[in-house]
Amino acid sequence: MICCAAPSIGGVHTISTSFHERLQRAWSHSDSLLCVGLDPEPARFPAHLGRGPEHIASFNRAIIAATADLVCAYKPQIAHFAAVGAEEALVDTVSAVRELAPHAVVILDAKRGDIGSTAEMYAREAFVRYDVDAVTLNPYLGSDSLQPFLEWSDRGTVILCRTSNPGAGEIQDWPEGDPLYAHIARLAVEKWNPHGNLMLVAGATRPAELARIRALAPDVPLLVPGLGAQGGDLRAAVAAGVDRHRRGLVVNSARAILYAGSGEDFAAHARAEAMRMRDALRQAAALAQGE
Amino acid sequence: MICCAAPSIGGVHTISTSFHERLQRAWSHSDSLLCVGLDPEPARFPAHLGRGPEHIASFNRAIIAATADLVCAYKPQIAHFAAVGAEEALVDTVSAVRELAPHAVVILDAKRGDIGSTAEMYAREAFVRYDVDAVTLNPYLGSDSLQPFLEWSDRGTVILCRTSNPGAGEIQDWPEGDPLYAHIARLAVEKWNPHGNLMLVAGATRPAELARIRALAPDVPLLVPGLGAQGGDLRAAVAAGVDRHRRGLVVNSARAILYAGSGEDFAAHARAEAMRMRDALRQAAALAQGE
Repeated sequence: MICCAAPSIGGVHTISTSFHERLQRAWSHSDSLLCVGLDPEPARFPAHLGRGPEHIASFNRAIIAATADLVCAYKPQIAHFAAVGAEEALVDTVSAVRELAPHAVVILDAKRGDIGSTAEMYAREAFVRYDVDAVTLNPYLGSDSLQPFLEWSDRGTVILCRTSNPGAGEIQDWPEGDPLYAHIARLAVEKWNPHGNLMLVAGATRPAELARIRALAPDVPLLVPGLGAQGGDLRAAVAAGVDRHRRGLVVNSARAILYAGSGEDFAAHARAEAMRMRDALRQAAALAQGE
Repeated sequence: MICCAAPSIGGVHTISTSFHERLQRAWSHSDSLLCVGLDPEPARFPAHLGRGPEHIASFNRAIIAATADLVCAYKPQIAHFAAVGAEEALVDTVSAVRELAPHAVVILDAKRGDIGSTAEMYAREAFVRYDVDAVTLNPYLGSDSLQPFLEWSDRGTVILCRTSNPGAGEIQDWPEGDPLYAHIARLAVEKWNPHGNLMLVAGATRPAELARIRALAPDVPLLVPGLGAQGGDLRAAVAAGVDRHRRGLVVNSARAILYAGSGEDFAAHARAEAMRMRDALRQAAALAQGE
């Protein structure tokens, strides 16, 4: 089948506000810093639901319905769809957020990075085909690889800065003293944010680096992965990154929520875990503000 | 439609030789360093063929048929398929290479880079769903993002080192003196090549950097983009990167070949341009060897 996947009703999702306004609204509406990462792994789905890729859309819908009021954002990870040819399930997942959690922003985790003409294609994939609010990008190729995304001024661009994985340091912390991630944070503030639609990725596993990024980019919202399965320290990460309005962070958790239960009540378990995380994030933000 | 796209007949493409052996065989068979980049842009297709995404597969087939004996490799760029939902056209394009140019290696240009569990999904996308010989990767996330690909010891992993685009320098040439691209080339040789299935990307637009990469990684084949539309210097690039057997390079050209003609004889024009490029590369390699 050759197609351009149908966007929301009436064409591309109508966006009349800037990405940062929508993010502020998502924080206000939910009073939550939590983002649920949608990394569907069919082999881990509850048995009664079925464990093939054809069940991804219904699994995601159940998770979104169970967590809608607890989160500011959802972050579908595109490889989990692309690996099994489930592009239509990704389209359905974005639609499910629009229906069930209309306040939430959708960040497509794609970590794209390519030269100008190809970057335009990837921007079209993210913002037209999947019609998401924001997309993650890899900065290795420099400004002209980011420009085609940044020009979508009503959409968000989320640039990898210091990631949460074990191997990140050998590239991003190099060289000692003035490391690559700090160079990226400076470029982000000085060159890549004319439309104010930027975010940076700063992993929860390295609170000191997160704090340095916050210092270099005081007004840039941070997408924070690495809690839960990756072992990040929630309190330290929030303390390092939260802004004076107790916002500025979109803290992702995927597997700990998605697979909190494996029985017929998996959605209730996911909700309970998401509520626990939301509350822990609220408490950490209040603590960081000296309450 | 939810599916795992059908691989070659009888399951995943049967590979009994290592990636580097296949690459050597592709060089020997074709006596060519040329790789045709398959970056289909339906708006630029010849009018008689039709200009919608549904014509991508037949356009690519015509290009492959016209250039099969002139090249060592084809490099489909995945965004050009993903942006318009043409995943099946990509499957068909890989099949067309297996049928029409069985000696050639297929390098999927995807520039993936993500943490371990997600990298496994991307590896599955490249090596199972699309069943290609090699895939391009972005090293920003470090070793654990590359490992799931490197473990496919019979497939190739092509890591971005110094790319050809105008903005590359602000990241990859930083900091002065001992820049990031040199750090990547060292890591590639020291850490990422235990199976000998690695390649590095070194753009033709910067022959001095290409020469430094060749010096740091004398035995690693280089994928060289940036000729033609991007303005790279063919002679200087070949002189900087060719090995003593007049090989070691896979030199990509896409738009200059794909869109050499726009009439009913577009395939003949593509063939003529590919032949011109192959001959220029041969001549440059001979010149570099002092003949």
